Amino acid sequence: LEKERGQVNFNVEELTNIYDGGAEETKLRRKVADVIQNDPEVRCKDIGMMTREERYIDGVRRCVYLYKVLLPREGWTPVSKEVKDYFKYRNIGKERSFGVHAGVFIPCLLSFGSDEQIAKWLPLAMQFQIIGTYAQTEMGHGTFLRGLQTTATYDKKNKEFVINCPEISAMKWWPGDLGKSANHALLMAQLVIDGKKYGMHPFMVQIRDLTTHMPLPGITVGDIGNKVGFETTDNGFLHLNQVRIPRENLLCKNAEVKPNGTYLTKASDKMVYGSMVRLRAIILESEAVSALGKACTIAVRYSLVRCQGELEPGKPEVSVMEYMTQQKKLLPYVAMTYVTHFACLKLSNQYNAFTREMDNNDISGLPELHALSAGMKAVVSEQCSDGIEILRKSCGGHGYSNASGIPIIWSSAVACCTYEGENTVMLLQCARYLVKCINQVQTTRMVGSVAYLNNMTQSTCHVDSVSGFKQLDVLVACFQYRAREVLKTAALKLSHLTKHGMASYNAWNQSSVELVNVVKAHITQFIVTTFASGITELECTKPVKNVLQQLCALYALSCINASTGDFLKVGYLSPRQCDLAHEAELELLSCIRPNAVGLVDAFDFSDDLLQSCLGAYDGNVYERLFAWAKKSPLNKTEVTIYQQYIQIRLIGRRKAF
Amino acid sequence: LEKERGQVNFNVEELTNIYDGGAEETKLRRKVADVIQNDPEVRCKDIGMMTREERYIDGVRRCVYLYKVLLPREGWTPVSKEVKDYFKYRNIGKERSFGVHAGVFIPCLLSFGSDEQIAKWLPLAMQFQIIGTYAQTEMGHGTFLRGLQTTATYDKKNKEFVINCPEISAMKWWPGDLGKSANHALLMAQLVIDGKKYGMHPFMVQIRDLTTHMPLPGITVGDIGNKVGFETTDNGFLHLNQVRIPRENLLCKNAEVKPNGTYLTKASDKMVYGSMVRLRAIILESEAVSALGKACTIAVRYSLVRCQGELEPGKPEVSVMEYMTQQKKLLPYVAMTYVTHFACLKLSNQYNAFTREMDNNDISGLPELHALSAGMKAVVSEQCSDGIEILRKSCGGHGYSNASGIPIIWSSAVACCTYEGENTVMLLQCARYLVKCINQVQTTRMVGSVAYLNNMTQSTCHVDSVSGFKQLDVLVACFQYRAREVLKTAALKLSHLTKHGMASYNAWNQSSVELVNVVKAHITQFIVTTFASGITELECTKPVKNVLQQLCALYALSCINASTGDFLKVGYLSPRQCDLAHEAELELLSCIRPNAVGLVDAFDFSDDLLQSCLGAYDGNVYERLFAWAKKSPLNKTEVTIYQQYIQIRLIGRRKAF
Repeated sequence: LEKERGQVNFNVEELTNIYDGGAEETKLRRKVADVIQNDPEVRCKDIGMMTREERYIDGVRRCVYLYKVLLPREGWTPVSKEVKDYFKYRNIGKERSFGVHAGVFIPCLLSFGSDEQIAKWLPLAMQFQIIGTYAQTEMGHGTFLRGLQTTATYDKKNKEFVINCPEISAMKWWPGDLGKSANHALLMAQLVIDGKKYGMHPFMVQIRDLTTHMPLPGITVGDIGNKVGFETTDNGFLHLNQVRIPRENLLCKNAEVKPNGTYLTKASDKMVYGSMVRLRAIILESEAVSALGKACTIAVRYSLVRCQGELEPGKPEVSVMEYMTQQKKLLPYVAMTYVTHFACLKLSNQYNAFTREMDNNDISGLPELHALSAGMKAVVSEQCSDGIEILRKSCGGHGYSNASGIPIIWSSAVACCTYEGENTVMLLQCARYLVKCINQVQTTRMVGSVAYLNNMTQSTCHVDSVSGFKQLDVLVACFQYRAREVLKTAALKLSHLTKHGMASYNAWNQSSVELVNVVKAHITQFIVTTFASGITELECTKPVKNVLQQLCALYALSCINASTGDFLKVGYLSPRQCDLAHEAELELLSCIRPNAVGLVDAFDFSDDLLQSCLGAYDGNVYERLFAWAKKSPLNKTEVTIYQQYIQIRLIGRRKAF
Repeated sequence: LEKERGQVNFNVEELTNIYDGGAEETKLRRKVADVIQNDPEVRCKDIGMMTREERYIDGVRRCVYLYKVLLPREGWTPVSKEVKDYFKYRNIGKERSFGVHAGVFIPCLLSFGSDEQIAKWLPLAMQFQIIGTYAQTEMGHGTFLRGLQTTATYDKKNKEFVINCPEISAMKWWPGDLGKSANHALLMAQLVIDGKKYGMHPFMVQIRDLTTHMPLPGITVGDIGNKVGFETTDNGFLHLNQVRIPRENLLCKNAEVKPNGTYLTKASDKMVYGSMVRLRAIILESEAVSALGKACTIAVRYSLVRCQGELEPGKPEVSVMEYMTQQKKLLPYVAMTYVTHFACLKLSNQYNAFTREMDNNDISGLPELHALSAGMKAVVSEQCSDGIEILRKSCGGHGYSNASGIPIIWSSAVACCTYEGENTVMLLQCARYLVKCINQVQTTRMVGSVAYLNNMTQSTCHVDSVSGFKQLDVLVACFQYRAREVLKTAALKLSHLTKHGMASYNAWNQSSVELVNVVKAHITQFIVTTFASGITELECTKPVKNVLQQLCALYALSCINASTGDFLKVGYLSPRQCDLAHEAELELLSCIRPNAVGLVDAFDFSDDLLQSCLGAYDGNVYERLFAWAKKSPLNKTEVTIYQQYIQIRLIGRRKAF
């Protein structure tokens, strides 16, 4: 790898700074990383060999240590910048408990609670006297919130709410930190007063005794069992059988129930949508994009070290990176990491701008922001998790071993496709906004991420050279045209069906397969456009700008070449132009390949974070693999199983069964 | 589900019989299933909750019981039809040990051993006095066999071979049953006599003591650790340091070393290729296609039970199967299971025909068969494992839980993309054959799976209706035209590059991205063509034939619609025709949807085999989920972890750390 690093033609540190958002940010991030990686109590090790129980216990242990020892020692608090921005995602990984307590329960308490309620519960939560979960999803209902069945019925006489799960499928299911750790739940339930339903409301419910930790009367609670990933987290179930809580436990910033049963709303629930946008931007960056970056780092380094086969007959074996098929598997995902990282950043910035507008009571930007975040959530989580799996397979047999680190990275990234709004539902939410936009574009000027819809002229691409297809403005035009045309076509089908008498809900369902494709086109367009214009504004050295332009073009071309059908069908590209675009992608692969190691080094993931024998910075793959394998749980005992079953029962020294 | 079953318009049992290859086969399969599922010692349960160690021990226990108790009781032997055909794949699943011993070690002993060697070792192996593994892959080399580094140097004086791993990466890595169970290895090593290399040869090497089970001198052996799947299997490492074995332990059916060091070859190594073809056909059916069928069964049944959201506003919630996006996720994979099942059968039959020809010393069919099996292996394993993951996600949150059964199904199916020849290498092997064919087609008439290349006329599709695109002959023509044209284009690029002075190995590398696509087109063509012509010949009732035709068309259309770019670029379909093909797919989804449950019931996977709370025959999803969750390992203890960490250390009743 040293030789490879010698041929990198840009300043890796400069690129790291850009990725982090400035040299100061890099410095702070590394300071935190140093603290963590030099503290043996909090370093992760050998998670790929641990059982579920070991992972959970170790996560609790590590987290308790963090909050009770490390933070006070360093003079940090759970909300200080060091912890908030960097702790979780690029310095310590996910092997921690209380993620829902710190990341959802406390923020939701702040969002939904009145000042008195916050004053009462927040200090306890900050000191972990209260350990909370956020209980919304039920066994029978997830993304479709109106279907949730748990009820909170107001009992006027006793001034209490009675929380109840009417059937087994109404049980809360999936909340993190719930199964074993939490003693409180911020629980969403259907409010019922005098037989009338008022929709979902947030309640503070104590579920376990604070001293014995045993479930309170009427509460059944436990862990829901093993999953694809998230071994460290005790995702749980919670059944409530006529559990009574005081009236004051309805979190009443937005709505209140008076002692006599009068229901009062105070604030718009639009705020809730705002915080969903924020959560999605954070999740994408921390769970999907950074996971893709880790997988890229591992696969690129390993592909440079791994030698396999002769390229030129009779010559020595070459690194697998020399094969075009391998470059095609790896480098577009390196590009994707950069490109989507900045698109997520843009989404965050747009959210921040929105919150400033909201302070002036301007929430006009919310529909676009909500649609964009839903579409981004779905498209980016799918692109990233699919990419991680391709990168894993690109590592051959060793990619299948936990020693590679990629299986664990993938298993948590792929969950992103399902939680916080199932992806297909998210795509169709975004589609609804886009259809509304295209139907209004003749009369209303579109702004923001849909501004490209204003230009409705028919045209075709005029590029007739390979190099032409490396121009970012050419590529942006391709994506905008495609996105607009597939949207127009889907909207036409919709209006055609309704005009011919089909009910609109049915027409929507009949068009939904196309609409999913529309949103993918729209979001890819957004990602490419955002990065291309970001590069223009960026102040940096020429080599770095060069390499960023190449990455943008590579991502764009790999997207075009994966769906040439769209571009041909809308008549924007000709078959010959598709061939040129394909050749342009191949040329870019060769162009970027010498910089590959620099591009993944610039992500600056430490070996501790990667937890990979294949992807460590020094490239000592085989020594690490052997050292790792020796720690296999099956190697702890030598002959027990043999004596117990094989020798005695099979070879037949003694009769058994 | 009962209501759903009432609307199925074909005879499910008839389709099961066709899938099994006849009513007698179904009967035999069920007889074996009954025996196994009624024996509590051998039934699988709750594997999704078990640790690696528990899975391994349970696999050994179950397998020992099978061979020592169940088989003798039933009057079966390891090679009787009941066991060979049905035991492994559709009756008992993969939770067994000694798969490599029974499925690779013994067959290879029979293939490579002389009559005396077989007489010596086979009885011991059949009685499990010898437990064997097949040790070929090394840490540093997999698919590229010539790169393997372990040597077997002949020592003339002592009439022994000295087996040695010259460096850490030469260690054997991955063989199944090796880590803990095996006491012998059928080991592939580079034969060296008097300093001259003779290539890879098979040796019988004892690695553990038969009484104590401890590794013999010079041997380092162990388990390689946790992986994505295959928890039950002790994939192992094996390092040999100057280990001496008798001259007679070179398996000498094909090549022999005389006491004086003279090397003699006796038979062509073409045989080896033949057995690879057989192995690939078996693997695809048992590991990839049946896994896809299981995932389809689970996802379809769950989607019919799961209600979520209103389709028509104000009406009750509907099953998620009512959404077109869900039908689009599920039904093409139901179709794929049927279509690829019969394509794999065709490959097996072709192999059987070849072995008959081989008995007459005719091995002319080998190159085609080898290429076809390589291409099939890569394309089918990828399609199936990608499909399983899409089906898993289609089950929403519960798909992410091991309770769904799909994570374990996927984790072993996806390994198929890597073992027995890494997929990209397989694709390029097939591509080499296809390029040879297309370059000869002007002078030589092609037969078998490449016969469609003989027709080289330019044409376009003339269909102009949605119903036209449901005709199987129309679809077959699409695939044959596309496959031929992308092959022609890639071959042209290759010859263009070499004509302009590029070395042929380099031109090959530069064209490899296209060549991968060529093989995918060729194999999809083979699958569609095989199934379409199979239906024509099939004797069955009209409703069954109808539904099989629909499945064939659905598979074909979903493939076309996923790569319209190819069909447009070669000029065979117009944009309008692509729209028609898209509409045809949507119509077929609606058409097949009422039969969905019947189509997966017909696979006839028992609940025991599915190991799924979501996919059981009775559809009692939520009761099963709750019962399953209660068994989570984390629910075994109530408060231990709390007392140990949370209460004491965090809430601070006592000082710690």
